[in-house]
Amino acid sequence: MKSDIEIARECRLKPIEDIARQVQIPVDELEHYGKYISKVPESLIDEKKVENSNLILVTAITPTKAGIGKTTVSVGLALGLSYIGKKNIVALREPSLGPCFGLKGGAAGGGYAQILPMDKINLHFTGDFHAVTSAHNMIAALLDNYIYQHRDEGFAMKEILWKRVLDINDRNLRYVVTGLGAKTNGVTMESGFDITPASEIMAILCLSKDEHDLRRRIENILLGTTIEGKPFRVKDMGVAGAICVLLKDALHPNLVQTTENTPAIVHGGPFANIAHGCNSILATKLAMTYADYVVTEAGFGADLGAEKFFNIKCRESGLNPKLTILVATTQGLKMHGGVALEDIKKPHSEGLKKGFENLDKHIRNMQAFGQTVVVCFNRYATDVDSEIELCREHCENMGVGFAVNNAFSEGGKGAVELAELVVDTIANRPSRPVVFSYTDRDNIETKAEKVVRQVYGADGVVFSTAARKMLERVRQLGIEDYPVCIAKTQYSFSADAHAYGVPHGFKVQIRDIVVNCGAEMIVLIAGDILRMPGLPKSPQAERIDLIDGRIEGLS
Amino acid sequence: MKSDIEIARECRLKPIEDIARQVQIPVDELEHYGKYISKVPESLIDEKKVENSNLILVTAITPTKAGIGKTTVSVGLALGLSYIGKKNIVALREPSLGPCFGLKGGAAGGGYAQILPMDKINLHFTGDFHAVTSAHNMIAALLDNYIYQHRDEGFAMKEILWKRVLDINDRNLRYVVTGLGAKTNGVTMESGFDITPASEIMAILCLSKDEHDLRRRIENILLGTTIEGKPFRVKDMGVAGAICVLLKDALHPNLVQTTENTPAIVHGGPFANIAHGCNSILATKLAMTYADYVVTEAGFGADLGAEKFFNIKCRESGLNPKLTILVATTQGLKMHGGVALEDIKKPHSEGLKKGFENLDKHIRNMQAFGQTVVVCFNRYATDVDSEIELCREHCENMGVGFAVNNAFSEGGKGAVELAELVVDTIANRPSRPVVFSYTDRDNIETKAEKVVRQVYGADGVVFSTAARKMLERVRQLGIEDYPVCIAKTQYSFSADAHAYGVPHGFKVQIRDIVVNCGAEMIVLIAGDILRMPGLPKSPQAERIDLIDGRIEGLS
Repeated sequence: MKSDIEIARECRLKPIEDIARQVQIPVDELEHYGKYISKVPESLIDEKKVENSNLILVTAITPTKAGIGKTTVSVGLALGLSYIGKKNIVALREPSLGPCFGLKGGAAGGGYAQILPMDKINLHFTGDFHAVTSAHNMIAALLDNYIYQHRDEGFAMKEILWKRVLDINDRNLRYVVTGLGAKTNGVTMESGFDITPASEIMAILCLSKDEHDLRRRIENILLGTTIEGKPFRVKDMGVAGAICVLLKDALHPNLVQTTENTPAIVHGGPFANIAHGCNSILATKLAMTYADYVVTEAGFGADLGAEKFFNIKCRESGLNPKLTILVATTQGLKMHGGVALEDIKKPHSEGLKKGFENLDKHIRNMQAFGQTVVVCFNRYATDVDSEIELCREHCENMGVGFAVNNAFSEGGKGAVELAELVVDTIANRPSRPVVFSYTDRDNIETKAEKVVRQVYGADGVVFSTAARKMLERVRQLGIEDYPVCIAKTQYSFSADAHAYGVPHGFKVQIRDIVVNCGAEMIVLIAGDILRMPGLPKSPQAERIDLIDGRIEGLS
Repeated sequence: MKSDIEIARECRLKPIEDIARQVQIPVDELEHYGKYISKVPESLIDEKKVENSNLILVTAITPTKAGIGKTTVSVGLALGLSYIGKKNIVALREPSLGPCFGLKGGAAGGGYAQILPMDKINLHFTGDFHAVTSAHNMIAALLDNYIYQHRDEGFAMKEILWKRVLDINDRNLRYVVTGLGAKTNGVTMESGFDITPASEIMAILCLSKDEHDLRRRIENILLGTTIEGKPFRVKDMGVAGAICVLLKDALHPNLVQTTENTPAIVHGGPFANIAHGCNSILATKLAMTYADYVVTEAGFGADLGAEKFFNIKCRESGLNPKLTILVATTQGLKMHGGVALEDIKKPHSEGLKKGFENLDKHIRNMQAFGQTVVVCFNRYATDVDSEIELCREHCENMGVGFAVNNAFSEGGKGAVELAELVVDTIANRPSRPVVFSYTDRDNIETKAEKVVRQVYGADGVVFSTAARKMLERVRQLGIEDYPVCIAKTQYSFSADAHAYGVPHGFKVQIRDIVVNCGAEMIVLIAGDILRMPGLPKSPQAERIDLIDGRIEGLS
């Protein structure tokens, strides 16, 4: 089969105005970035129409290193829905340059179920990530400058909580010391860089209701504590307006198209393992304003992205998905069933069946959120029919809808079974309103305890001394009503990346806590997860190339 | 008078297609970024037409902290040329976010002589700076990763020459130690950040002839020396293609418009004090393909930007300006004439006359490059006519053309005198072909010696021990034929920022040398110039604001 970029190149793109017209987005409101990308102002959101639209969440079993293909299924479902005549928009996150040049590749779907132009989307796109990086680092520079310029007047910080970000996998930047050398090089400090998708600014962009809410959140960002023990925020430097200016355009969602010329809205890009993992509320609501069915996804397995989708994004926005699709692959199931990683592409029915345990736990979890669940089997070329039938049988026994997605190879017509199942299920037995794992009034320990017990299947949570200190700070700040955002490996229900299947008898260690007073959530860092990834020995960058103006090696 | 952004907001912009049509740029080739900005492919350059176009360089006397208004004069001249019916394009550099949020403000002209949309141009624009930042830091991450991943195979670096960049004034990042903490956080190393306009990638973007030349230059970038003493380059990691992919769109020049709807091409943005200070060769040639007169500028005083414009950009591209305009202000002249900075806005004829010394030295310097020079007096509201007449008289006595620019207050009609002088001078006594300060075959010491003696008026150059070591490296690498790019304070002919006027009896200390094997130049760091600026006590960011979707405080 052809590579993703070959398929993307062969697709006949339609001008973005034509895509907008399909769903009655007013063409005059588009802000073009080339012929095939435009920004759409969030002011077009109509809450009445949002209420009448059907939101579908796509999530997955615990993924392998290669992923489960959630984006491919999301795009495939959108193609399938269009194929059967349903007006829909797929609402996705923007890819990060880090994984694109690192291990995982881009994040624009695959095969005949992609969003286009995939090269632009996977690279600089409309500059939203760059705006987030600039805004984040501008705050860091302004903060260090404030300390430097006011140090002779007795101003000093007891603790600085604000780091820097880059949209690159650069492990060497995780922990740095800045301000070395001459005295005029600033004040010597410990610092570090996270990847841009972990930036609090990214979370704020994805959770803001409008420009005013963005402003309020930027003002409230907690940068640290002064020597007098007072919280020091962006508003204390008087620069929130300047930071909002840097984010002005980034706040507008981006309109693109799929491989079959249907509309896609792509906006925001926090990772689900180190951040809250959902596209922006504005993008989802904008899509719901213009379509009867909106397909969106949350990152990595359902323990990460979907949990945060419900407990953070739905709580914040009032959104209620009508249906949750849980994506599974034979490879993923076999990995969870104990099959060695080098053998998961070969037939192995016993291993597959053992892997159902992981699928079932995710199904029960999603049902606990009040969701109607259907399982989507994402077909790979190496899959055999008998194993797919085992999955179908298993889901039937569980009383859960089942469909195969073959959009990767066939585009929309490979997702008709899935699309029909989705439409039928939403019509006949839609989800209940979201049942949250915890209430606002639970304190942070209780919130964490509830998530790790109910969702991860853990025996509880343990806070490190550093984390306990931050918990005390959270209490002092009076922000215990914020939801928790657990940063945890994507490869296991537990914080141990090698514990496949459904681990039991473990506790989740919270190593550190990051307070996000702008995004209004408390980030709990579990186990050894790092918010700045590294590059592998042979990074994808070695295979990306530019040959006579043609980009190769992007996937 | 109204503020820059108020004037900008009141301007009625024309769709960018209309601007392109004015000069017969084919509209189908435009890649839009909103209604008023587009990228134009550099493949449209026609060398025959370039030869027949008239290039005008705008440079200045040694500037004050507020600048001399070169960009305002460049745009003003373009407006004036249009006013008298001459087909022209102004070709400028892109502003950096660093000074925009720091001390100096934006760089899109001022008053009624601006390029628009000034907010977009001063902020993220078409993302070119972000692409340069990404490409530069991606190389840094790939390099550190290469060292980390191959350290057990005996690979190690004796010296790393590649730093990182951010488009922010952040003094705390000048000198950092990375890779601290756990072993998995990489290899502990000294590093640092320069501002993006000092990135070698920025210089490469501005000097590349086409995509293939870009590729060749990226491959050749010298990253350091291996433990065996071998040069280690980007091509040794096999990632040059991936880096070119990140720069693919950034290589295309950007088309915008002036306050009077005439075309402007804005592309590339190295600073002239810490880099070579000229817009891209591709942008200049593209402008020359479509206009009879092309106005371009080089950064800061003529000792910095213009020297590098001739010795680097013209040498590399074969361009020959027909005329050089030297911009002067009463404030600048008075500063050089010994008037205290707080008094330079008040009348002071004696101080003004003493300041002519600085003007005259720059005039003689430009004439030594083979240039016909005219002096443009950039009028400020506080100026008095008698002082302007003193300047006119002085220039007449020097045998040099003189005109007042009042485009800041009046737009194009305020620059008619200047435009007529320019057209007349080009017709009757155009410059000779550029006379370089040194030949390719001079060694680096000789090249530096020639520039500091001829252009700065110094008694010679002194290399530090560190610089001498790098000179030896340059010899070993066989790259002594590269031109030199002297990084030096913009506030004096010397390396002492407080030596106004025309200092005498000084030598220029070269503290360090940065080898740019991709940009093909040797950067000599003179005195205490820093390639990462800091923010002032009250940065511009405190005055930039977003009020109901309207940007305020940008200038």
